[in-house]
Amino acid sequence: MGADADTRRVWVIGIGAGDPAWMTLAAARALEAVDVVFVFQKGDDDELAAARRALLPAGVREVVIEDPPRGRGAAAVAEWRARRVALVREAVAAEDGEGAFLAWGDPSLYDGLIDVLREAGLGVRVVPGISAVSALAAQFGIAINRVGGSVLITSGRRLAADGWPDAVGDVVVMLDADLTFRAFPDAEIYWGAYLGTPDELLLSGVVAEVSDEIARVRSAARERKGWMFDTYLLRRVAPG
Amino acid sequence: MGADADTRRVWVIGIGAGDPAWMTLAAARALEAVDVVFVFQKGDDDELAAARRALLPAGVREVVIEDPPRGRGAAAVAEWRARRVALVREAVAAEDGEGAFLAWGDPSLYDGLIDVLREAGLGVRVVPGISAVSALAAQFGIAINRVGGSVLITSGRRLAADGWPDAVGDVVVMLDADLTFRAFPDAEIYWGAYLGTPDELLLSGVVAEVSDEIARVRSAARERKGWMFDTYLLRRVAPG
Repeated sequence: MGADADTRRVWVIGIGAGDPAWMTLAAARALEAVDVVFVFQKGDDDELAAARRALLPAGVREVVIEDPPRGRGAAAVAEWRARRVALVREAVAAEDGEGAFLAWGDPSLYDGLIDVLREAGLGVRVVPGISAVSALAAQFGIAINRVGGSVLITSGRRLAADGWPDAVGDVVVMLDADLTFRAFPDAEIYWGAYLGTPDELLLSGVVAEVSDEIARVRSAARERKGWMFDTYLLRRVAPG
Repeated sequence: MGADADTRRVWVIGIGAGDPAWMTLAAARALEAVDVVFVFQKGDDDELAAARRALLPAGVREVVIEDPPRGRGAAAVAEWRARRVALVREAVAAEDGEGAFLAWGDPSLYDGLIDVLREAGLGVRVVPGISAVSALAAQFGIAINRVGGSVLITSGRRLAADGWPDAVGDVVVMLDADLTFRAFPDAEIYWGAYLGTPDELLLSGVVAEVSDEIARVRSAARERKGWMFDTYLLRRVAPG
């Protein structure tokens, strides 16, 4: 099993951050060319896994990998990663032909899949996807950076711990369960959830004026759907 | 002319950062639906404009806008922007039907087009595209960020002026004529030019070991083709 898996190459195909039409022609072609698609799935009713599945061309075999539960803390996360690596190695070794993993958005941004596949000894060929960053900007019809300015892409936890660098005008936060934007009441926020889907939510304004509404809308949507994927841009009103 | 242009909406369609197959299904559909495509062009032999043109479906009218020359310094750049705004307003007002502007890569990242269109009084609907950031990561088969880490997207000038923030492990530089990476000899670099095209160039390694080669390859390619579009990721070897 090990020797076989060590020399295998798999596709990692970015399918875009929500709207199925955000898939690229290259992704569609790669999907037509593969024999088997591996899908990580959490539980039975994973809406994201179902949406991924809807993109598969007829005749492509689907192999579901049950995503192991992830505990809290560094040791638990390390164990979770190690189990994912083992599951990937096993699943790929058990299948013949060209295999692909699908990734929401862009596989290169806040998606651990490429690293897991490499740890599993697999070679990867990546098809880039429309990231949640690009999707957020498109839905608001705005540029992410100001002329000549920098953009920081980070997590809520990192933003809370490291702060907002002086030299950076715009910050995109990809993962944030803690509504970290509330720490920046003077900034403008462009907040989006379930981007590119029929459930899409978009809110923007000065943080001090819209943060309560975002918190309320976010919480209600999360309750209704059972999961939340949101992203936001924070913009300094007076660039400094 | 002004009143008409003031109420018009145009598409801004991201066509991806090089490979024509990086166009999304949404972009292809939008191109099929428009009557006229506006293309900024510098001089007669603009290779990028020609490549853009090759993506146009039959029957779509093409309107070339000669990109005015850009001087150096803030005043000259402001004048260039104002002239672009005026040219856009004029070109759109002179055409009937649905219009679109095409943008390389993702229109939201280091592309002033959206701001120019808004200044021209136009509404925009944006189709996101594969950015050079996503393309670079895909061609190297790597993730842009480390687990839980931040990514700074910036220009060479900004990186030179502001430095590399301590809290940021990875920096993507989008525009850099000055080989600013040489200031970080201990970092790893993933350098790519003409991504996704037959002329693609990819080099990586520790900066101290590969910077001369990158400088040489970059200079030779620029001489050969007459233009250069490159992007790179700088990664701290010991994250800190």
